[in-house]
Amino acid sequence: MEFVKDLRWKKGMQVDELVSSLGKVGFQSIELKKAQENIVKMKKDGAKVYLTFTSNMVTSGLRGFFAQLIKLKIVDVIVTTIGGIEEDIMKAHGENFIIGGFDTDDIELHEKGINRVGNLFIRNESYSKFEDLMNPIIKKLYEKKHRWAPSEMFKEIGLSLKDENSILYQAAENNVPIFCPAVTDGAFGFHLFMFQQNNPDFIVDVVKDFQNILLSTSQDEKKGMISLGGSISKHHAILACLLNGGLDYAVYMTTASHSSGSMSGATTKEAKSWGKIKDDSDAVTVIGDVSITFPLVMISVLEELSREGLI
Amino acid sequence: MEFVKDLRWKKGMQVDELVSSLGKVGFQSIELKKAQENIVKMKKDGAKVYLTFTSNMVTSGLRGFFAQLIKLKIVDVIVTTIGGIEEDIMKAHGENFIIGGFDTDDIELHEKGINRVGNLFIRNESYSKFEDLMNPIIKKLYEKKHRWAPSEMFKEIGLSLKDENSILYQAAENNVPIFCPAVTDGAFGFHLFMFQQNNPDFIVDVVKDFQNILLSTSQDEKKGMISLGGSISKHHAILACLLNGGLDYAVYMTTASHSSGSMSGATTKEAKSWGKIKDDSDAVTVIGDVSITFPLVMISVLEELSREGLI
Amino acid sequence: MEFVKDLRWKKGMQVDELVSSLGKVGFQSIELKKAQENIVKMKKDGAKVYLTFTSNMVTSGLRGFFAQLIKLKIVDVIVTTIGGIEEDIMKAHGENFIIGGFDTDDIELHEKGINRVGNLFIRNESYSKFEDLMNPIIKKLYEKKHRWAPSEMFKEIGLSLKDENSILYQAAENNVPIFCPAVTDGAFGFHLFMFQQNNPDFIVDVVKDFQNILLSTSQDEKKGMISLGGSISKHHAILACLLNGGLDYAVYMTTASHSSGSMSGATTKEAKSWGKIKDDSDAVTVIGDVSITFPLVMISVLEELSREGLI
Amino acid sequence: MEFVKDLRWKKGMQVDELVSSLGKVGFQSIELKKAQENIVKMKKDGAKVYLTFTSNMVTSGLRGFFAQLIKLKIVDVIVTTIGGIEEDIMKAHGENFIIGGFDTDDIELHEKGINRVGNLFIRNESYSKFEDLMNPIIKKLYEKKHRWAPSEMFKEIGLSLKDENSILYQAAENNVPIFCPAVTDGAFGFHLFMFQQNNPDFIVDVVKDFQNILLSTSQDEKKGMISLGGSISKHHAILACLLNGGLDYAVYMTTASHSSGSMSGATTKEAKSWGKIKDDSDAVTVIGDVSITFPLVMISVLEELSREGLI
Repeated sequence: MEFVKDLRWKKGMQVDELVSSLGKVGFQSIELKKAQENIVKMKKDGAKVYLTFTSNMVTSGLRGFFAQLIKLKIVDVIVTTIGGIEEDIMKAHGENFIIGGFDTDDIELHEKGINRVGNLFIRNESYSKFEDLMNPIIKKLYEKKHRWAPSEMFKEIGLSLKDENSILYQAAENNVPIFCPAVTDGAFGFHLFMFQQNNPDFIVDVVKDFQNILLSTSQDEKKGMISLGGSISKHHAILACLLNGGLDYAVYMTTASHSSGSMSGATTKEAKSWGKIKDDSDAVTVIGDVSITFPLVMISVLEELSREGLI
Repeated sequence: MEFVKDLRWKKGMQVDELVSSLGKVGFQSIELKKAQENIVKMKKDGAKVYLTFTSNMVTSGLRGFFAQLIKLKIVDVIVTTIGGIEEDIMKAHGENFIIGGFDTDDIELHEKGINRVGNLFIRNESYSKFEDLMNPIIKKLYEKKHRWAPSEMFKEIGLSLKDENSILYQAAENNVPIFCPAVTDGAFGFHLFMFQQNNPDFIVDVVKDFQNILLSTSQDEKKGMISLGGSISKHHAILACLLNGGLDYAVYMTTASHSSGSMSGATTKEAKSWGKIKDDSDAVTVIGDVSITFPLVMISVLEELSREGLI
Repeated sequence: MEFVKDLRWKKGMQVDELVSSLGKVGFQSIELKKAQENIVKMKKDGAKVYLTFTSNMVTSGLRGFFAQLIKLKIVDVIVTTIGGIEEDIMKAHGENFIIGGFDTDDIELHEKGINRVGNLFIRNESYSKFEDLMNPIIKKLYEKKHRWAPSEMFKEIGLSLKDENSILYQAAENNVPIFCPAVTDGAFGFHLFMFQQNNPDFIVDVVKDFQNILLSTSQDEKKGMISLGGSISKHHAILACLLNGGLDYAVYMTTASHSSGSMSGATTKEAKSWGKIKDDSDAVTVIGDVSITFPLVMISVLEELSREGLI
Repeated sequence: MEFVKDLRWKKGMQVDELVSSLGKVGFQSIELKKAQENIVKMKKDGAKVYLTFTSNMVTSGLRGFFAQLIKLKIVDVIVTTIGGIEEDIMKAHGENFIIGGFDTDDIELHEKGINRVGNLFIRNESYSKFEDLMNPIIKKLYEKKHRWAPSEMFKEIGLSLKDENSILYQAAENNVPIFCPAVTDGAFGFHLFMFQQNNPDFIVDVVKDFQNILLSTSQDEKKGMISLGGSISKHHAILACLLNGGLDYAVYMTTASHSSGSMSGATTKEAKSWGKIKDDSDAVTVIGDVSITFPLVMISVLEELSREGLI
């Protein structure tokens, strides 16, 4: 039996110490510490680790942290939405996103050519520069071959980016595939469409990528999941693991509630009914904004792995 | 200036009367009434109406209501996730989903071959029967041609379903295209993959469907959106309308909060910064479970249109 | 085993029909129907019914509906916060609250003397008129006796209000006690304080009201709870019932999540660990804005009781 | 113009460094950093600081942290609910609360005499020991005088506790008043009631405490608020500051949404319409579980104040 322990500040307190203390505080702080332990276990057990996130997290500064995790060999497969891939490319080409506010005059922003994502701002020019970037990239891809699975395209693009903080670059360098089941749902899709208009034999083969993600692991391999937010990125990784016998470890971090039956809010508990997560697996759901909860959990994971000489 | 008005029950009260009264109650009930007025306006204005929903809503009994709305010519374009399409097909073939509970023993459910979606249950056999259904369907599609946009597949499948309560059937019958930007993210994807293994020239052309949804409307046409829940279905419809000049009318109904910058929680206010929704458009966000809020809003819309002889 | 049933609109659909249909739709709509059945059962079983709500619901048009429920003898005891009592008195004296919006310029509102509660507005003058009202009321109470339990004060005030839509008036007329464990937490408290400055022997006896609420029921009596929102009103009614052996029926309707361990988000499931709700009781939690969910549930209850000649 | 900056882990990272980095990440992490800056400013400006929290936070290990903040002279006035005061006294007498789980069998817990608060457990025996404690305490208070304002009772009790981690003890030692506008809403209330049965001239004077909280500050003094969670503790502190001219600094940390018009979810933006927060004040709302967000913010505040020799 473990007891609640009063939290005390000590001067110069490290993140890792805080996360340890939070494990005895209560409510989501306890789940946070469980998530940290879960991820340490999946790493020590040699599990294949799936990391999923939504595009708003790439809009945010978590992007560089994701890249760092790939470089440190913490994650093996990534599933995300196309918006995240677009913004990673933009940033790798020097675009900067602005720290704004939630309560702004959105009509005024529109007039200034500024697009809002929560309390972050993206300028229209970032999108027009992206257009200029994408056209030669797609042309070059087409010249190589006419039929591409999305994950193969992302690898090819990643290799060209040369940015330490880029998710696509680090993934390409470290052989971490990036899957994106809705590749057309963004500006990227628009540019693919424009190119296909003049090159009807240009094919984006999403069915092939289903094969690729299925073969990214196997029944025999231990499998772990770190799912940030909801959306198809969460569902798609779970599906691939379910078809390979289910997850051994799972951490879901989300703001969504389970009360409406949505995938975003679906808990690790619900996942067990499906066999998405094995009955005897280690699974934890942390409710909260991942811009706060994920760095806390993951820095504490890194410290522990580092102490033990595992990274 | 309008004032809050005390709600009073009258015997035999109709849904439409209640929604009218709710418009003067407060908080989300006021937004609910605004949503009703917004949708009536988009219909009277002859706008092209986009309806988006997530698959859990097709798991629920909203499915037949969506089908009815298509038949009544209330909606013109549908965007959803593949899970919803799978379940619509299952139900059209007689599958029944069980009313269960949120607080169940998920390991026990798993042992019984039951999968939980919130408080609803789907039996494993529903999925195995679906597999038996899909194989001949895909084979038949392939015999017709080797390269399909998803929306074209759904139309072909829909025509075969012959179920008044089927979304795919009513959509096919009424020339309402169904878009699904992540067509492989479900059992459907698995069956496409299995088929492609033996038929490598079988192509699912998602880029073609980007063209199709783009051409589903135009700059000149008035455009309205009814978005239920979040996910790529919401984003994809918005994107198509943005590329056609932005929405004139928009109703977002969701449980997600805007505080984490996610697409699911993005408000109609935020959308204005992007031009997703025009500056002078009529837009409203209703926070709440759409299994309750959507029927209320929509039944009241139908009553008003019916009274005016418009349906 | 019950199955999900497709929802269909029928012209002239009544609220009661809709709620019945919602019981087979999914997610919160199912819980909504369970709440309706729960309340019908508590009424048929002759349970003492506790209704709790927060002050923002009295700001809204639910106020008149609460009054109607008291008049129809649906509820036996009320627990609320002092803001709700203040606003009921204001409205009984002709004050009107304005339907505004969530996204308004709050600094501009402040300059105009307008106070915002969500999307409703209260003018400063409503509070200054309230001050003019309260002074003679407190003086008259003091002349009668010097030591008052809050519920006794509310009854005395209620008798003077003569407004069919007033909660205090209907409660006084129908012998429904109103408890408010934090009587000083509002403008009311300020006026009590001002009066006590000159009349130090004026005593508001909150301990006496603890006795009153404890004696409002007994171990032997069946007890039911309808709790709207969270706060001390929810907790106080539960506490009184716990000390009398626990609830036989409970409906919690709230927007709060259980994830942070708060009373507002505490579920009926958690309540069973405390014996707040009996192990074999009938209990349901509905997540959603009560400005929508409560009228739906309750109108359907009233229709059923009316059909059976019970009201 | 500030830009989003990619987050990078550095070995041995301190909490304060992390919070600084989070200020450039996005979404709630940005608000978190703003909250830290706000609190540093209110301290440097010599503002009177109000800290409000709900009882579940005292159930958690935040209790010792609150005590530490009082000892370090960070907060000047506390407003909370009676449950928190009860549990502080229990813990000061050696009671331990158990770390449990959200998904437990609540009926089984009840049979074992265990009460659940989220994922924390309190044993029945903790309450029965509390009863044994309270009787002599109340008797002794009564012997001193017959009429007590709650804050005066808490000070008297606090002086007797001799526990460094106790909120009441540290508050009493450091002349920090504790206000609790609903003093009877808990086991404490029950014991007060039992005592009053035999001693009818025992009076708990809540009106007096309204005077005390009003006089805890003044129009001229700078005023700052750190409000954790919702409930009357939040409202009561705001009310006291509003009556003294409004807040100069405000940090609200909560999981509640503003969408239902509740006090718990009311934002600092809404507060400006009331003058609760001055138009030109510094105000920030952080959405998230305070068991995580508050330690992060506050440890970073303490590090900064410590670096500058202010604590």
